[in-house]
Amino acid sequence: MSQTMEKKKEKVPMNGVDTPTLLATINAVKDQPELAKFQFRASSRWLEGTHSRSQVEAFDGAGGTHTHESDYSFDADHPKVLVGGGQGPTPVEFLLHGLAGCLTAGIANVAAARGVKLTEVESTVEGDLNLLGILGLSDEVRNGYEAIRVSFKIKGDAPKEKLQEIAEQSRRRSAVYDVITQGTPIEMSVEAA
Amino acid sequence: MSQTMEKKKEKVPMNGVDTPTLLATINAVKDQPELAKFQFRASSRWLEGTHSRSQVEAFDGAGGTHTHESDYSFDADHPKVLVGGGQGPTPVEFLLHGLAGCLTAGIANVAAARGVKLTEVESTVEGDLNLLGILGLSDEVRNGYEAIRVSFKIKGDAPKEKLQEIAEQSRRRSAVYDVITQGTPIEMSVEAA
Repeated sequence: MSQTMEKKKEKVPMNGVDTPTLLATINAVKDQPELAKFQFRASSRWLEGTHSRSQVEAFDGAGGTHTHESDYSFDADHPKVLVGGGQGPTPVEFLLHGLAGCLTAGIANVAAARGVKLTEVESTVEGDLNLLGILGLSDEVRNGYEAIRVSFKIKGDAPKEKLQEIAEQSRRRSAVYDVITQGTPIEMSVEAA
Repeated sequence: MSQTMEKKKEKVPMNGVDTPTLLATINAVKDQPELAKFQFRASSRWLEGTHSRSQVEAFDGAGGTHTHESDYSFDADHPKVLVGGGQGPTPVEFLLHGLAGCLTAGIANVAAARGVKLTEVESTVEGDLNLLGILGLSDEVRNGYEAIRVSFKIKGDAPKEKLQEIAEQSRRRSAVYDVITQGTPIEMSVEAA
């Protein structure tokens, strides 16, 4: 293979994704699979009524502990129509954010790896929640979202089908999509005094 | 039943929760179950690399459309150690926030309904994520969190066991706990150009 051809195959940064470094990182993890073990953490404090504030904490992974570039703190509350204080988004809305953010990041990474330049990625996420369960008025209605719909609009320098395949590959490898569709066991402990 | 005894049974606002109004709301929904149908929405826009920004939109419920008290906008990004821009929390961390916020709001509501005054509710949430799946290095490792642990510290004017029962009842009626443990179907559509 000529040097020119080899150069053609090289991955270049695209869409703001440093693909060469990302591929090098994947190779490093391949050699040392224990680097792939991550733990993310949040801590939360009740303020008043249904209003609470949580903080993103440092996280572990790639063999170390990492802090975020900034301190992140988020309020959550029930809306006034549900007799909450309305001092923040509702807890269920954070799930929709996480889902959009995860799928969008994946689309950018996959597009860069496939040499596709993106110009626009937008999405809307809707979640249907029937409160009859939560309010204790029905044992047949579940507490959580009954259905979630995500609609993407993607523009880039590739045919429509290729852009759709990129979104599909992002879905296939999305952490948040997997948690929401497949579920994750939660262990809860309470220290009361 | 004497008037004094009736008065004793009346619910009073507590922990910042307006319990009488909350119970009146539950009764109103009991009479008109269609009021219980809610839809929450978020919209998201890709910025650069794995960095995106989403907005909480208006939501439908109780027979109308409601806006939040403020506009909420959140960034999400992959961390630098994963070749992201580090311009926001990771999408998976928003799930931990949502979980803490939902369980905490429920604890405040349930405690108020049971006449228990809370003085402190704190929690930490940890999620274990093995990236071998996401990075395409293993077909046996899932993409999402393998396990999540929530630890609460609760203080209030009730015996330890009663506080623990309040937390347990919140878990039983938590929307986010239900979505994460049981899963919700997600429909995804892509409009590409």
